[in-house]
Amino acid sequence: MQVNGVPYRTVWMEGRTVRMINQQLIPHRFELSSLENHLQTAEAIRSMLVRGAGAIGASAGYGMAQVVLEAPDDDRFMTYIESGREALRRTRPTAQDLFYAIERVYAAALKGATAAQARLLAVEAAEALADENAAAGEAIGRHGAELISDGARVLTHCNAGWLAFVDWGSALAPIYMAARQGKRVSVWVDETRPRCQGASLTAWELNGEGIEHTIIADNAAGFLMHRGEVDLVIVGADRIARNGDAANKIGTYEKAVCAAANQVPFYVAAPMSTIDLACASGDDIPIEERSQDEVLYVVGRDDRGELTRVRMSHQGAQARNPAFDVTPAHLIKAIITQQGVHKPTELPCALV
Amino acid sequence: MQVNGVPYRTVWMEGRTVRMINQQLIPHRFELSSLENHLQTAEAIRSMLVRGAGAIGASAGYGMAQVVLEAPDDDRFMTYIESGREALRRTRPTAQDLFYAIERVYAAALKGATAAQARLLAVEAAEALADENAAAGEAIGRHGAELISDGARVLTHCNAGWLAFVDWGSALAPIYMAARQGKRVSVWVDETRPRCQGASLTAWELNGEGIEHTIIADNAAGFLMHRGEVDLVIVGADRIARNGDAANKIGTYEKAVCAAANQVPFYVAAPMSTIDLACASGDDIPIEERSQDEVLYVVGRDDRGELTRVRMSHQGAQARNPAFDVTPAHLIKAIITQQGVHKPTELPCALV
Repeated sequence: MQVNGVPYRTVWMEGRTVRMINQQLIPHRFELSSLENHLQTAEAIRSMLVRGAGAIGASAGYGMAQVVLEAPDDDRFMTYIESGREALRRTRPTAQDLFYAIERVYAAALKGATAAQARLLAVEAAEALADENAAAGEAIGRHGAELISDGARVLTHCNAGWLAFVDWGSALAPIYMAARQGKRVSVWVDETRPRCQGASLTAWELNGEGIEHTIIADNAAGFLMHRGEVDLVIVGADRIARNGDAANKIGTYEKAVCAAANQVPFYVAAPMSTIDLACASGDDIPIEERSQDEVLYVVGRDDRGELTRVRMSHQGAQARNPAFDVTPAHLIKAIITQQGVHKPTELPCALV
Repeated sequence: MQVNGVPYRTVWMEGRTVRMINQQLIPHRFELSSLENHLQTAEAIRSMLVRGAGAIGASAGYGMAQVVLEAPDDDRFMTYIESGREALRRTRPTAQDLFYAIERVYAAALKGATAAQARLLAVEAAEALADENAAAGEAIGRHGAELISDGARVLTHCNAGWLAFVDWGSALAPIYMAARQGKRVSVWVDETRPRCQGASLTAWELNGEGIEHTIIADNAAGFLMHRGEVDLVIVGADRIARNGDAANKIGTYEKAVCAAANQVPFYVAAPMSTIDLACASGDDIPIEERSQDEVLYVVGRDDRGELTRVRMSHQGAQARNPAFDVTPAHLIKAIITQQGVHKPTELPCALV
């Protein structure tokens, strides 16, 4: 996608350096970050400089390529690689794309007969991953756009747009594609507390693409569905189990329950790499619990233009912060992948 | 209830002055406001210096008494009273207690044969309203405490505590009473975007009463219900229709739908004055839409201790801000009033 007329991917590699859009500063500032080694890349993933299933995956793939590039060309080569792989695996627990990318680049590197070959193969695998992620987003857009009729009012939660992937996105890709096909689309954007990725990232993306959108408090989604002001819901996913249960940003489950109660079709959009065949059901998906400060504070731009955090509760207040929840397959009308639109119980890869 | 060992009501009258706790500053500062005439009191209600169904009602009752006290003792007497009554009625559209209180004080004043008598009757009626509201809260507490077993984990939304009434509260009164009976109770506090009355007011109240509580993003309520970590939900109401449909803070409907999906009992607590016999169903309850700035900004204390607002989205972003939603009676297990615990379809006043 373009930012002020210049085409960008969310993350890419230049030599040994991983470069990415600093998503902590959007929408207030547009800055690129440079991660010079795999530890910096791991920290960027952990601290959510980059976030979103596909973007985490691509970053981890590049980070794993950095590990192989950095590994000393002697008998410490494999120890270094194993240690870097672990450092990257420990950054975030829920997103399946993270593990998929690390393991694919790791496996590619192991096929090299020499360290030099391993380095070449690792970088090639990381680049292929990023390209596939961008292509998957575009294909999800094509398949998903068929579900969006002219004039549709779509509700989405969190950010599963191009910033959450290498390009295009998952939940927003069908919206971008429908708009390019000339359909009128408007989007209800859940602000998505606690980190407000809807208000900060999704609204910024839609604004950049010129798509009509309105931010709402997460609490208002059910109200709008009940009033008949939502035609369909599309969300992304961080991990999809074999039975079609889907983990996504906290609050997704509430929206799915309300959509079912109001006969609003609820779609999950994700590339195949998000499906985890090792998880039989959503019960097997680990749910990350993050710092209570994300709930106790809100970060934004104050009236002087400074990025500031404010606290709403009394000093000493306690909060709990589960970052994801699981939407059971029976609440999902269909899962949109790069291969098409599938019933959650009939995922193509479930046959693999 | 007490603040730092001193007993307070939320709102009271001293001579011609209405005094109230400034709820816009809680939990950051504890300050009392003085409203010298009915226009100041109306503005305090409109700007949410005071909020919460019962506290709005009591304030409006005192405001109506101010109108009668201020009215010139000549042929402009009734014109002034009608105009003041209208000014108070226009402040907030959803809370039934507002209209109930204004009309009761107005009707009392009309019974006076002289202006002096009318003034006396108006002040008496406003004081009686406030006393009844406090007594209703305590009675709701007694009835509701029977629904709370030792060790219960209660989820609540917004603030329907003593700050929302003259004393005790509605949704929180059963929790306060259960705690005084020696039961262990812990409370999940929905932060309640956009104005965060849960994080700022409910958490502050519970902290003052020494009751264990944990703030969560509104998005996490369904997750906790699904995981079996919520034993019951108690919320307040701003208006209850004859058929048991209940309007309350935006997001209440989502929690009720999720509670039903997870077999978690969902209770509404409110005094009888919140029931509006003129509304046949929730469809007849007007829903206030408030400024989009409440969604686009969050107000809190910054790290320097200053009350600051921060913006999460890009400049020019649009938001929609419905302040209430309606929970259909079929999702409500029971409505707790000062008269007891009723099925929503068997409200005692429905027989009046």
